[in-house]
Amino acid sequence: MAKVTFDYTNLREVEGGIGDRELQELGLRLEDAIDGFFKNPPGFMRLPKTAEFSSPSKALAEEVRALGATDFIHVGIGGSALGPIALHRALNHPYYNLLPSYPGPRLHFAENTDPATLAAILDVVDLPNTWVNVVTKSGSTAETIANFLVIRGNLVEALGEGTYREHVVFTTDSEEGYLRQIADREGTRTLPIPPDVGGRFSVLTPVGLFPAAVTGLDVDALLRGAAQCVDEVAQRGADHPAVEGAAYYYLMDVSKGRNVRVMMPYADPLDRFAAWFVQLWAESLGKEGRGSTPHGAVGTTDQHSQVQLYMEGPQDKVIEIIEVEDHPRDLPIPKAYEDLEGVGYLSGHTMAELLNVECNATRKALLEAGRPNATISLATLDEEHLGYLMQALEVQTAIAGSLYSVNAFNQPGVEAAKQITYSRMGRPGY
Amino acid sequence: MAKVTFDYTNLREVEGGIGDRELQELGLRLEDAIDGFFKNPPGFMRLPKTAEFSSPSKALAEEVRALGATDFIHVGIGGSALGPIALHRALNHPYYNLLPSYPGPRLHFAENTDPATLAAILDVVDLPNTWVNVVTKSGSTAETIANFLVIRGNLVEALGEGTYREHVVFTTDSEEGYLRQIADREGTRTLPIPPDVGGRFSVLTPVGLFPAAVTGLDVDALLRGAAQCVDEVAQRGADHPAVEGAAYYYLMDVSKGRNVRVMMPYADPLDRFAAWFVQLWAESLGKEGRGSTPHGAVGTTDQHSQVQLYMEGPQDKVIEIIEVEDHPRDLPIPKAYEDLEGVGYLSGHTMAELLNVECNATRKALLEAGRPNATISLATLDEEHLGYLMQALEVQTAIAGSLYSVNAFNQPGVEAAKQITYSRMGRPGY
Repeated sequence: MAKVTFDYTNLREVEGGIGDRELQELGLRLEDAIDGFFKNPPGFMRLPKTAEFSSPSKALAEEVRALGATDFIHVGIGGSALGPIALHRALNHPYYNLLPSYPGPRLHFAENTDPATLAAILDVVDLPNTWVNVVTKSGSTAETIANFLVIRGNLVEALGEGTYREHVVFTTDSEEGYLRQIADREGTRTLPIPPDVGGRFSVLTPVGLFPAAVTGLDVDALLRGAAQCVDEVAQRGADHPAVEGAAYYYLMDVSKGRNVRVMMPYADPLDRFAAWFVQLWAESLGKEGRGSTPHGAVGTTDQHSQVQLYMEGPQDKVIEIIEVEDHPRDLPIPKAYEDLEGVGYLSGHTMAELLNVECNATRKALLEAGRPNATISLATLDEEHLGYLMQALEVQTAIAGSLYSVNAFNQPGVEAAKQITYSRMGRPGY
Repeated sequence: MAKVTFDYTNLREVEGGIGDRELQELGLRLEDAIDGFFKNPPGFMRLPKTAEFSSPSKALAEEVRALGATDFIHVGIGGSALGPIALHRALNHPYYNLLPSYPGPRLHFAENTDPATLAAILDVVDLPNTWVNVVTKSGSTAETIANFLVIRGNLVEALGEGTYREHVVFTTDSEEGYLRQIADREGTRTLPIPPDVGGRFSVLTPVGLFPAAVTGLDVDALLRGAAQCVDEVAQRGADHPAVEGAAYYYLMDVSKGRNVRVMMPYADPLDRFAAWFVQLWAESLGKEGRGSTPHGAVGTTDQHSQVQLYMEGPQDKVIEIIEVEDHPRDLPIPKAYEDLEGVGYLSGHTMAELLNVECNATRKALLEAGRPNATISLATLDEEHLGYLMQALEVQTAIAGSLYSVNAFNQPGVEAAKQITYSRMGRPGY
């Protein structure tokens, strides 16, 4: 069982914090939101309890691993990349690509059109043993198609027109789009993205599950944690703390003028998890002139970069700390220089202890300075806990969409630049 | 000569943008700020035109390289890490640590107390051929000392008490602090951080220059670009566009209520440059209830994550694009699937072309949506241009400090959490 707790005490106890009256006033709307949510549950809610997407993802991953693939290039952008990157960074070894043993093929992300990144990937991969996974729901994302065409050119050169196809996977809409057309023509392997799940909610579809399985992560545990969250939200409704969080962050923005929501994990491996959340919150809620700005930070690192601003800058932020109670690895700090008072006191403690002491110290200092903050605690950092947390934040974001009265599942604001790009690149009809 | 240009047109032309009258009203204060700046120039202004710090950095780097060191661990946090990381990420190969040739020792950053990171570094380094550079101006930063003590324990075990010392460098205050005391005792090699240059302005001291030189970067070109900026600021004063930028961003925050400044380079290698800038701006200005919130993004990637919020969310942001006119590397997009209209149109273009077309498209779409944005253009991405830009943004930040009427060179707000940490970790006297 995943143990994930949410603590909003310091959003209430701080001066100018959120009071019972405000929460009660919003209470009816929150009840309505969660009722509506369960009456017509978004597609992402059924993902944790089906093997429809995990089974083919695991099977294909086994095939790639069994063939001894040396390199696996994941091509995708936005929701087709941020989930897989967050999982990889949170759960795999930080030097995964450097490890002398074989945890799986080296994993590369081509998520931008910057030639610096793709050229570097092509410098290091062993093409004859390289697989590419092209992830775009629509099948026509310009950045993703461009990366694919360049990688395709290299694969064809290395393997020939016939064999290159065996090294390609398309993760795309189960029925429509250009990749689907190419797959029909060339016999490319495909994995489905369900039509009712948008990119930023797709981490538990093959978008996230396939690359996770390729690197040896336990996708069943991911789903198990997420399923636990689904059950607990169904049981507790508006009282589930992730749902309550929607109300807290909404009120902090709309009633208290705090338009910046800082997510600050005290764990290096969660830095890209924060980036995943930034998309989820920003793209779901940032419309019709509404939506707070999610901003990622990392503790302790950003104590030496941004905490000055959080402590003494304008009262325009809420800080959301994520702490890991029991870190998967730890290192004792050995004894040395015990006569030097600014050095020796560290001996006998551990690195994880120092990290969590600093986390507590920052939380206390923020509270004392009248800076509202909340905390999510994970008993540990593993697939199950991360699955729970991702599902919980997806629920929170969807409910926040109702409170903001926006459609959390579209992104009309990115169309204009796309049209201009298509026109300037000479796409027919634009 | 570096060619770095600043374009504020879209901060003026947008509805509710900054007008001549507002700039004129601020004009006198801006003149005063730049006069005061040159009357008593901050320490960072003399760095570009002296070999005092580059010479010893280069010499020691040569020694490390000549010995064939396989691994180099840079230990530091905040201003002792963000500059070196920004340079490494911007100018070295994205897979520097994986390259089969020897560009220099593999470079590792231990910038947090998270044991996940340090344990991973210790998993992969070849200890007998590993060097460690411990960077803390005060010589007592808890995170840095903790990392050092753990690494030290491992080095002593691998090399013995006598030899381990030859693998250690302290980059610290030239006169004071615990590292200075240890160095005196053990004969450790040291590099100086000048007392009048604070961490976030220290990239052109040995803090940034030594690791840059270890990996083979051209530190003279970095300094040359920065020196060009110093000369141009001296020549143009309040008319230098970096100085003007201080006025624009100050007005956007204080007069227009835009409390978020987004820095969005259209270049993957500049993602950590944005993180460097975030500290510079946040920690320098975030005090006395003032200071806007710097936020990093990357184009095109964040078009698929955050641009929805920038385009249609609240009018609380300024977007600052950084574009690279001539990317150091490029890849042609080969012909394929020309009958598929959503795919074939990309053939014959290049990746860099697509990247810059998207940059232009986003700028245009933002303007059309009434979203203020500015652009910094770099003719290319190399040491000289980056040196110029870093110096320019340091000047801009210092001048912004005058406009905000805060001391840009202290960070009183991080003390409280430090005291609590010391007390809980049992440091004598706390």
